[in-house]
Amino acid sequence: MQPVTVIGIDPGSQRTGWGVVREISGVLHLVDCGVVRTASAGREFSDRLARIYHELAKVLTRCKPDEAAIEQVFTAKNAASALKLGQARGVAVAACAACGLSISDYEPTLVKKSLVGTGRAEKEQVAFMVKRLLNVREADWALDTSDALAVAVCHLTMRRFAALTGH
Amino acid sequence: MQPVTVIGIDPGSQRTGWGVVREISGVLHLVDCGVVRTASAGREFSDRLARIYHELAKVLTRCKPDEAAIEQVFTAKNAASALKLGQARGVAVAACAACGLSISDYEPTLVKKSLVGTGRAEKEQVAFMVKRLLNVREADWALDTSDALAVAVCHLTMRRFAALTGH
Repeated sequence: MQPVTVIGIDPGSQRTGWGVVREISGVLHLVDCGVVRTASAGREFSDRLARIYHELAKVLTRCKPDEAAIEQVFTAKNAASALKLGQARGVAVAACAACGLSISDYEPTLVKKSLVGTGRAEKEQVAFMVKRLLNVREADWALDTSDALAVAVCHLTMRRFAALTGH
Repeated sequence: MQPVTVIGIDPGSQRTGWGVVREISGVLHLVDCGVVRTASAGREFSDRLARIYHELAKVLTRCKPDEAAIEQVFTAKNAASALKLGQARGVAVAACAACGLSISDYEPTLVKKSLVGTGRAEKEQVAFMVKRLLNVREADWALDTSDALAVAVCHLTMRRFAALTGH
């Protein structure tokens, strides 16, 4: 298979994690990762969303991923938090769509299962596995960052599986 | 006051209304309006969102508005519909942010109140007033379109008020 670079995104209205992973001959390499923090972005909620857009656009320009994988969420505490979370996710999708990337949606349970073996894994377990798979020993990542990297790794796993099975 | 062109957007995961209004010397002129329909956009929800992004990006390139006004929603039937609606709104914000537009958020009740005088006005009443204010006699607009135009008109009203009072 050709090398491929994937951006994984874990959207949130306060913190949006992102992580870019490159797969070369079946081996995963960390390209870059981080968190967009929006608490101080502005008065209106749209200012926060605009910050997410501009920061992700910068990452996409710099890292030039081939495909995007974004965490999909179907539940939330209540309608108000769902509206906020949804908007952050919409911005992430738009940033990737603006670059013409194909976008795959992954539920958190599938991401956890593909990495740790169970859909109920703790975030710390996910972070541990992400570090192992990317061969990163020392990393002071926020959990949003390791979650985003996990989505990218999950997508690469599903992609490899699809290529093997022809699905 | 200088002429100003405003895009109003009424986001939705199935239909996103948009309307562009230009104010010249206190008189409102309809520039263009329409609806982005996404039901047939693709398999994944992100495909629908990408369609909204690309269609709005085309409108923004063509109509070159100076400012954006987007309907803000704080309630939804349930968390699932809130997540969908939120994502559509996030995409609309991102499309405007990508063009460097300032974005103002308006609650539906404020939009209705500024046009019809009551926050509980029916969509048909809003459509009637929008047509009157834009001096459009015949128009077969979808309600999403007139709602979007209403948001643009509301923003222009608030803007004029702010210029008059210095707020």
